[in-house]
Amino acid sequence: MKSLQDSTVAIIGLGLMGGSLALALHAKNACRKILGITRNPHTRAQVLARGIVANASADLDLAAEADIIILATPTQTILKQIPQVGTVARAGAIIMDLGSTKREIICAMQALPAHLDPIGAHPMCGKETFGFDAADANLYHNAAFVLTPLERTSPTALALAQSVAIALGARPIILDAVRHDRIVAAISHLPFTLAAALMTTANEFACTDEMVYTLAASGFRDTTRLAASDTTMMLDILLTNRENVVSAIHACSRHLAEMAEMIDRRDASALRAWLERAAISRRQLF
Amino acid sequence: MKSLQDSTVAIIGLGLMGGSLALALHAKNACRKILGITRNPHTRAQVLARGIVANASADLDLAAEADIIILATPTQTILKQIPQVGTVARAGAIIMDLGSTKREIICAMQALPAHLDPIGAHPMCGKETFGFDAADANLYHNAAFVLTPLERTSPTALALAQSVAIALGARPIILDAVRHDRIVAAISHLPFTLAAALMTTANEFACTDEMVYTLAASGFRDTTRLAASDTTMMLDILLTNRENVVSAIHACSRHLAEMAEMIDRRDASALRAWLERAAISRRQLF
Repeated sequence: MKSLQDSTVAIIGLGLMGGSLALALHAKNACRKILGITRNPHTRAQVLARGIVANASADLDLAAEADIIILATPTQTILKQIPQVGTVARAGAIIMDLGSTKREIICAMQALPAHLDPIGAHPMCGKETFGFDAADANLYHNAAFVLTPLERTSPTALALAQSVAIALGARPIILDAVRHDRIVAAISHLPFTLAAALMTTANEFACTDEMVYTLAASGFRDTTRLAASDTTMMLDILLTNRENVVSAIHACSRHLAEMAEMIDRRDASALRAWLERAAISRRQLF
Repeated sequence: MKSLQDSTVAIIGLGLMGGSLALALHAKNACRKILGITRNPHTRAQVLARGIVANASADLDLAAEADIIILATPTQTILKQIPQVGTVARAGAIIMDLGSTKREIICAMQALPAHLDPIGAHPMCGKETFGFDAADANLYHNAAFVLTPLERTSPTALALAQSVAIALGARPIILDAVRHDRIVAAISHLPFTLAAALMTTANEFACTDEMVYTLAASGFRDTTRLAASDTTMMLDILLTNRENVVSAIHACSRHLAEMAEMIDRRDASALRAWLERAAISRRQLF
């Protein structure tokens, strides 16, 4: 069995996630060779010039010589690229992805040829900025790095995927894909939808009063931060985790309606108890 | 007319807002004398020992010698203290507050004796931490500092209130109280209710899956930050701005429902346009 140190790693997509991965693996000298696959000629020139990758191409064929192929494109692109990678990858290659939802991706991986060794992954980190220019070798530091093995995933693939996470300074966590998707709907996709809905509501207010954004302060800034996330990435996430996201939105909407109702009927003691529970749990968490 | 430099300023309430105000006025040597009024004996001892105030008391009577009295307590407390301050303050004294909602406060100020000179204020800054220990001389720096004069407010009171804002490094903005309350419902109170509802929803998920908070990352942290705000302060705010808050919650809930509906029917193009509008306006704003 090859160690990560002896492995050639092909990274498909060199945006925020893939770019940060390439920077971190390069900085730690964690693998034998990095290959970069991206359609962006400017990014290809940059990673080659900086010596981050041994080779770069717009073509998936470059991944043919890799021991580990990591898909770091938006979720719907990953779904399209999995069968393409299946025809390119050499026997025994580990096929991994960094997609933010896992159930549909695991399903697509299930259909890969038997000589390939797939495993799902989702590092719990990110920024509202995107593209290689936003990439950061420390992005993965201390992040939970979820691994969602398939039944067919070999112990070797699992061990190497864990080595990748550890090389990045992240904490590998093995989780079932269905369970992963339910959890991230609540703590990642729901916060995004709230940020986007808040921004949309404020825009509506700003249409009739030009002072609205003059008064916006740090609370508004932080609560809306995720609304600036890459639209393509978020669209793919929402559409590949539909049931969970819709049900999380409904759960949260019920709580909002409860709150509005308590405010409306001036029920100070019920509202105080409700707000205090939320405040205490937030203070315990961070 | 006295300048701020020649004025004695009494601050009622030395928590995050009043404490930061005292620290800033003291650091800039902006007024003749600061008097601190707080029920907290520990805070009184601290501000006296550090020479921030000339005198400190638990009793509003201390404000009798002040030229400017600034109420920096939670909104419902301000409403109770306004008539008490009315019996204590000397003729010509400027009565100002830092409450987060303005309509009910302006209404209470209207009933003050004619020899007093009231004006409402709301500095658009804060933190989710609270109490004098969280106070920070730079809290007001660059913040919008809303002033809501009454019809009876004298030009002197308005000028001195503007001097206070400028001394703190803030930007004074004159605004009608009704308009202020409508705006802050959208850009301040709504973000808080969303943060609290998100925290409540996540707690619900965490009840049935102990991995939920293991996967929570910076997006969840930032979007829930306001949920940790002081409950008494937020309760007062929500209850003194009921109609506006409830209507902002309803507007935002409608947008959430729209989003859930687009996700549910897989309407990628409508959803993309919707998310892109929110993303672009967020990126333009900060």
